[in-house]
Amino acid sequence: MNITLRKDAEQIARAAIEAVKPDAAVRRAVENMTFPGKVYLVAAGKAGWQMAKAALDCLPCAPAGGVVVTKYDHVMGELPGVSCYEAGHPVPDENSFRGTQAALELTGELTENDTVLFLLSGGGSALFEKSFVTGEELQDVTRQLLACGAEITEMNTIRKRLSQVKGGRFAQWCSPAKVEAVVLSDILGDPLDMIASGPAAVDVSTCEDALHIAAKYSLKLSETAQACLKQETPKELTNVRSQIIGSVRELCRAAAQEAEKLGYEPVYLTDLLTCEARDAGAFMASVLRSHAHDGKKLAYLAGGETVVHLTGKGLGGRNQELALGAAAGLAGCGNACVISVGSDGTDGPTDAAGGYADGDTLQELKAAGLQLHEVLADNDAYHALQKVDGLIITGPTGTNVNDVAVGLIG
Amino acid sequence: MNITLRKDAEQIARAAIEAVKPDAAVRRAVENMTFPGKVYLVAAGKAGWQMAKAALDCLPCAPAGGVVVTKYDHVMGELPGVSCYEAGHPVPDENSFRGTQAALELTGELTENDTVLFLLSGGGSALFEKSFVTGEELQDVTRQLLACGAEITEMNTIRKRLSQVKGGRFAQWCSPAKVEAVVLSDILGDPLDMIASGPAAVDVSTCEDALHIAAKYSLKLSETAQACLKQETPKELTNVRSQIIGSVRELCRAAAQEAEKLGYEPVYLTDLLTCEARDAGAFMASVLRSHAHDGKKLAYLAGGETVVHLTGKGLGGRNQELALGAAAGLAGCGNACVISVGSDGTDGPTDAAGGYADGDTLQELKAAGLQLHEVLADNDAYHALQKVDGLIITGPTGTNVNDVAVGLIG
Repeated sequence: MNITLRKDAEQIARAAIEAVKPDAAVRRAVENMTFPGKVYLVAAGKAGWQMAKAALDCLPCAPAGGVVVTKYDHVMGELPGVSCYEAGHPVPDENSFRGTQAALELTGELTENDTVLFLLSGGGSALFEKSFVTGEELQDVTRQLLACGAEITEMNTIRKRLSQVKGGRFAQWCSPAKVEAVVLSDILGDPLDMIASGPAAVDVSTCEDALHIAAKYSLKLSETAQACLKQETPKELTNVRSQIIGSVRELCRAAAQEAEKLGYEPVYLTDLLTCEARDAGAFMASVLRSHAHDGKKLAYLAGGETVVHLTGKGLGGRNQELALGAAAGLAGCGNACVISVGSDGTDGPTDAAGGYADGDTLQELKAAGLQLHEVLADNDAYHALQKVDGLIITGPTGTNVNDVAVGLIG
Repeated sequence: MNITLRKDAEQIARAAIEAVKPDAAVRRAVENMTFPGKVYLVAAGKAGWQMAKAALDCLPCAPAGGVVVTKYDHVMGELPGVSCYEAGHPVPDENSFRGTQAALELTGELTENDTVLFLLSGGGSALFEKSFVTGEELQDVTRQLLACGAEITEMNTIRKRLSQVKGGRFAQWCSPAKVEAVVLSDILGDPLDMIASGPAAVDVSTCEDALHIAAKYSLKLSETAQACLKQETPKELTNVRSQIIGSVRELCRAAAQEAEKLGYEPVYLTDLLTCEARDAGAFMASVLRSHAHDGKKLAYLAGGETVVHLTGKGLGGRNQELALGAAAGLAGCGNACVISVGSDGTDGPTDAAGGYADGDTLQELKAAGLQLHEVLADNDAYHALQKVDGLIITGPTGTNVNDVAVGLIG
């Protein structure tokens, strides 16, 4: 392992995540608001607790009430006057419904002078939910959609119609109160109606879309669910103002800045990466190897959200697979590495934020008795990277704006 | 379809191929040689006929004899004093063996004053072959290796040991005559011992490597074949001089130059691309979309040789899949396109050199009744691109230095 590259890469990744933590951005957004009446705080998503804490710190007065619904292990302490719920993700569970019900009860009887400060982040689709169908069916539909490889936009189109809060319905419920939505985007291109399935956004998907998706993946649905798919979502919302305060673009920019500080010339490839994780890694390795002898310190940046098609039963995540996917192409190249991290700090169902690979990784894996192609076929990047000190572990970060991969030539 | 982009892209691709045709490069190489005795010409590979023709045009005297073994439809006319054979590729057939036998008979009784002008290009692994095993077994092993997704270097490590001409054995056979090897590289990084399985190059792979590969893919081998794997290839050759006269690097540079002529700023990504074709296309689309509004005309260049894992029974090639893999990411983007072509003019088992996609392609496919994910699942890029005028057809080009993909922002 190239110790210098490892250190620089991790520093760049950590600085990028630090820069997109919601605290400062929430403060800027809230300080621009006026509150003629009472304020009710509702935060949903993986960054919910962190966003709520930042808002409480800068609100001109204590809120009349508050609810946070976030992922397990993401509540970092008590918040005065706010009930915090930890719940299931990516599959909603009873705690998702309980937390959401509390938010609905808080916001059901408001006046037009009141404001709902709605702090939304990725993961909200699962965490913030009250369904027209049973919890069991909702979980089953989510599992069906995950299993058949449906895209996130397709999943949300279905879930919106089964939901009493998604697709603008939460904002409708809060009416006549004003809804100030403050949004951390975890979807490329920042489509408001898709982030957390858009509880406070006019839905651009239609019943026709939903029926098409159900047919495309042969979804098994109850009669109630089938009826829901035919019920249209709000197409106008006059009580909502939305601000996107962070996205993968800022994550990439921050990575570029930190790389520059460390003497690397940043090369911005993309913030819209969507291809298979391991092939993204292989592509980056090809780029790095082709420029390894240019005589410059370079940092190639690629942000986005890659995908993993499961073929094995190992442990890993898309960022770990991306890094490992670069290992073959980098092999023997002494001055190049790839790091990839999820800004939320949890890559796949693991305690790692992502992974790191350089020109020595392939050889180190072999020395540990591992064949790269077998590891990848088994989707077991976590255990492989663990053996070669290639895991990047940050713990939950309190933010969630997709991933960034950085390829360094040192 | 964006007509301007389509025209520019095709012009860049054609100019790049034109620049790596072997004629001028062969002439430069041959003009530097001295021939104390007789000259025997042996050309093997997809560019064999073109290279032989160029050599004949500049040799100081007519050769004492000559043999060309190339792919079907690649002999463009008679060559004086040279026997031309067309044979099977990528699976060797009877004509491969017949042509190679003629070359061996031509070069079996030479003196140390004689010179074998050996013109080698990609495809030679299949086209130039005399095997220790039966033709049937050789074809079967090649098919097994292709089917299990073995890398080209792995395939060659096996094939060298089953062969009487590969892995330096042809040069050994020509001894004591001098062998002047003139090589067009179709393998990334230009490893002489791998191009066409290195008939005139010291073999760096070992018996141990070969046995490992056989085990890794559970190859079914006869006892003869198993014995061959244990027989070492020449590790020293004193009668050979090799010159690489062209590779994918020149192809990429020529594409960059032509793009610059047309007003695009070239951005050289890589000449070592090896990942899955469709994901390379998706990666390039992400890059293009992220820079589509930079206000510059840009040309992103990525050379190499991507791979396709077959899941369907359609018709296509890696360049066509790469282009189609960009279609989803480019959709709706009015000023970007991706073109990808193989320099040999034959992409997969098709009459196309490659494919083109832009921001309209996805919609045009839908209008033609095609779903992109279904086309890709069936590996049927050829028929899909055919319906939207996305095929690039050049015919066999007489050269073979891998592929180049160009992403344009206009």
